[in-house]
Amino acid sequence: MASRRSALRLWAQCKARSQLTSLRVANSSLILRRALSSSPHPGASDQTLVPLGRYLGWVALGLLTATSLTYTMAINEPLKMDTPTLAERDQQLKTEQGVSDVSPMRLRMEKFVKDQQRAIVRALEEVDGTPFRVDAWQRKEGGGGITCVLQDGKVFEKAGVGVSVVYGTLPKPAILKMRANHKNIADENNIPDSLEFFAAGLSLIVHPKNPMAPTVHLNYRYFETANPDGTPGAWWFGGGCDLTPSYLFDEDAVQFHKSLKDVCDKHNKDYYPRFKKWCDEYFYNKHRAESRGVGGIFFDDLDETVSDRENLFAFVQDSLKSFVPTYVPIVNRRKDMLFTEKEKEWQQIRRGRYVEFNLVHDRGTAFGLNTPGARVESILMSLPLTASWKYMYEPEPKSREARLVEVLQNPKEWV
Amino acid sequence: MASRRSALRLWAQCKARSQLTSLRVANSSLILRRALSSSPHPGASDQTLVPLGRYLGWVALGLLTATSLTYTMAINEPLKMDTPTLAERDQQLKTEQGVSDVSPMRLRMEKFVKDQQRAIVRALEEVDGTPFRVDAWQRKEGGGGITCVLQDGKVFEKAGVGVSVVYGTLPKPAILKMRANHKNIADENNIPDSLEFFAAGLSLIVHPKNPMAPTVHLNYRYFETANPDGTPGAWWFGGGCDLTPSYLFDEDAVQFHKSLKDVCDKHNKDYYPRFKKWCDEYFYNKHRAESRGVGGIFFDDLDETVSDRENLFAFVQDSLKSFVPTYVPIVNRRKDMLFTEKEKEWQQIRRGRYVEFNLVHDRGTAFGLNTPGARVESILMSLPLTASWKYMYEPEPKSREARLVEVLQNPKEWV
Repeated sequence: MASRRSALRLWAQCKARSQLTSLRVANSSLILRRALSSSPHPGASDQTLVPLGRYLGWVALGLLTATSLTYTMAINEPLKMDTPTLAERDQQLKTEQGVSDVSPMRLRMEKFVKDQQRAIVRALEEVDGTPFRVDAWQRKEGGGGITCVLQDGKVFEKAGVGVSVVYGTLPKPAILKMRANHKNIADENNIPDSLEFFAAGLSLIVHPKNPMAPTVHLNYRYFETANPDGTPGAWWFGGGCDLTPSYLFDEDAVQFHKSLKDVCDKHNKDYYPRFKKWCDEYFYNKHRAESRGVGGIFFDDLDETVSDRENLFAFVQDSLKSFVPTYVPIVNRRKDMLFTEKEKEWQQIRRGRYVEFNLVHDRGTAFGLNTPGARVESILMSLPLTASWKYMYEPEPKSREARLVEVLQNPKEWV
Repeated sequence: MASRRSALRLWAQCKARSQLTSLRVANSSLILRRALSSSPHPGASDQTLVPLGRYLGWVALGLLTATSLTYTMAINEPLKMDTPTLAERDQQLKTEQGVSDVSPMRLRMEKFVKDQQRAIVRALEEVDGTPFRVDAWQRKEGGGGITCVLQDGKVFEKAGVGVSVVYGTLPKPAILKMRANHKNIADENNIPDSLEFFAAGLSLIVHPKNPMAPTVHLNYRYFETANPDGTPGAWWFGGGCDLTPSYLFDEDAVQFHKSLKDVCDKHNKDYYPRFKKWCDEYFYNKHRAESRGVGGIFFDDLDETVSDRENLFAFVQDSLKSFVPTYVPIVNRRKDMLFTEKEKEWQQIRRGRYVEFNLVHDRGTAFGLNTPGARVESILMSLPLTASWKYMYEPEPKSREARLVEVLQNPKEWV
C-alpha cells in the first residue's frame, strides 16, 4: 500500500512537473494499479433512457483499462495520424508553458480537480486520523487518474476521492447522438467519422461509520471535443453534490442546501431551484418510491447556451471548493454521537438502499459495469463497506426512522 | 407475524377448498401482505438483451400489485368480456372437480408447486428449528401467491420460498415478441389484439449463516396462453437450480451436479450437458469476469419442440423434488463447521458479489424493479441479510479463497 508520504511525494511531483507524465512509475513505492475515479456517475435528469452520447462525459471518468480502452462502439483510441493528437498537443503545452489562466480549459480543469483532490483528501484525513490509500494509473494514449480510498477508518467506513483525465475518440454514432444536446459538436451537413475528446473530473463518496453522520457524494466534470482541424469544438460542464443521512438532522440538511444555494446564487439565481429539482429527480430510487437522500444539486450539459465558459468554470470551482467547509462541520458534529445497535441496524438497511440505487438505477454505474474491461474496483468504490437487507423491515410509526422515510418520499425545500 | 400454526391452517384451507379463493382473508391472524414469489428470475441463455416477451414467463412470477397490475405495455388485466375469463373457468373447474391428473396443466402445476412449497419449508424448518414467516396475497383478477421467509435463524441467514400464480392478458406487442420463440402462440396472418395467459412457479433462495455452507437458488415455472376461443395456446416450462459456495468443497459441488444430472438423464441424456452450460452462461457476473457460483442447471422455453408436455412436467417435477434430498445433506454437513472471522469476512465479500449479480445482471430482477408497482420486498427477498464491499480485496495466492475464484473464472465439469 502506498504510504501517505509516497502519496505526498507523488503530488509534489505532479505539481513540479508535467502532471500526466509524472504519473509514470517515477516512484516505485507507488501502487500503479488498475484504479480509477469514483463510481457515482450522475446522468441526465429524466428517468427514461438517455442517448448513449450523454453518458460519455461522465462514463469517461470511470471506464479505463490499463491495456486497452474498450468502450466498444462508444469511445475508441485516439486516431493514429501524422498530426499530433489532442493528448500530445496538451502534453507539449504543459511541458513548455505550464498551466495558467490563459491555458486551454482542459488543462485548467485537470489542474483544478487534482488540486482539489489533494485538499479534500487532506481535510478528510484530518477528520479521521487515518491516511488514504493512493492508487495512481495512467494511459499511454494520454491521460490518467488517481484514486484515493480510506477504508475502515476511525470516522469513515469508506471514503473515496477519485480524479481522472481521459483523452479518446468519439466514433460517428456517438457524435450523432451527442448532437441532440450539443448542436455545435459538428455541422449537420458535415458530420466527421470521428472526433477527439477530452474528459476530466473528480468524484467522491464518503460513508461515515456513525449512523448519525450522513453519507455524501459529489462529482464535477468537464467534457470537450476537438474539431478535425484541431480547434476546440463542443464543451460542457456537469456535476452535483448530494447528502444521504440515515438519521435526519434538519439543521444538517438546511446547512448543506444553504451552502449550495449560496454558491449557486452567486452565479445565477435560477441555478439552485433548477439544479435542486434535477437532483431530486435523478437520485430517485424509483422501485422504492423514495429519494436516495435529502438531495443537493445536480446538473449536466452546461454549455454556452447556459452561460459562457469562464462563468461556468467559476461556478464549478466554487461548487467543488464549498465541499469541505460544508461537509466537514456536519460530520464533525455527528461523528462522536452515541448510538444504539438498533440505530446501526437502520443505517445498514439504508446502506442497502444506497447499493440498490447505485446498482439498479445509476445509469453511469450500470453502463460502466456492462462495458467490457471496465475498472470495477473504482466504479464500485462507491458501495459501502457493509449493507443489510431485511425482509419487510418497517420503521415504527412516528419514529425518527419513519420521519426520514417520509421526507425521502416527499422531498422538502430546505432553504 | 404469522405463526407456524396459522400458516399450516392456511395450507389446510388451500388443500380443502378452492386454492385461489381460500387465500382471501379467511383467517384474520394471517398476514395478507404485499408479498410475492422469490426474486431470482432466470431468463434466457444469451448475454445480450432479449425481447420483452421472453421475460413474461418468469417476470409474471414476481410482479404483481394488490390493486393493479402495471406491467405497462407488457401485461394487462384480463379482458372484461361476457364469456368467463381463463381465471374464472379455472376457478370453476377446481371448485367442481378438484385437481387430478386429467386437469389442465395450469391447475396441476399450481397444485404441484404449492405442495412442494410446503414440503421444502417443512424440510428447511427442520434443519433450522425456526418457523418461516408466511405472507399470503391474492389478486382479485385471478391468482395469488404465498411467500415464506425465514430470517436470522439458527442455520439460515435468510431463506425464502415463494409460490405465485398469475392470470393476465398479453397485449399484441408482447404476443409478437413471444412469437420469436413460440410460433404457435398465434397464427402469423391472424395475430389477435390480446391473449389471456397463465403463469405459475416456485422460487427459492437459501443463504446459510456458516460460510462453509453454500447458498442455493432454484426456480421452476410454467407458462401458458389461451387462444381467443378459449382453447389452450402456447405453453412452456422454465427453471433451474444453482449453488453458490463461499468456500468450495468439491464433494458438495459434485453431489449437487450429480443429483441434477441423474434427474436430467432419467428424462433425456442431452438435458444435463445443455442445461449445465446454459446455467454457466446465465449466472455469469460478467463485470467481475467470474461465475456467480459453481452452477447447476438452467433452462427456458421447453415446449413441444423439446418434448411432450407430460414428459416435460415429469422432468420439472423430478427436478424440483430433488432439491431437498440434494441440498439438505450438504447444508447439514457444513452448518456446524468451525470458521474464523476472516472466513466470515470472505463470505460477506461473496455475498456482495451475489448482490451485484442480482441487481446488475439478473434480467428478471432489473425488469421487475423498473416496473411500476412491482412488489419489491418479494423481488429482493433474494438479497442476503448482510453483504460487504472492500476496495481492492484480493485473496492470498494459493488460499482456499483464491481457489474458489479460480473455479468461478473457469467453470468446471463436476460430473
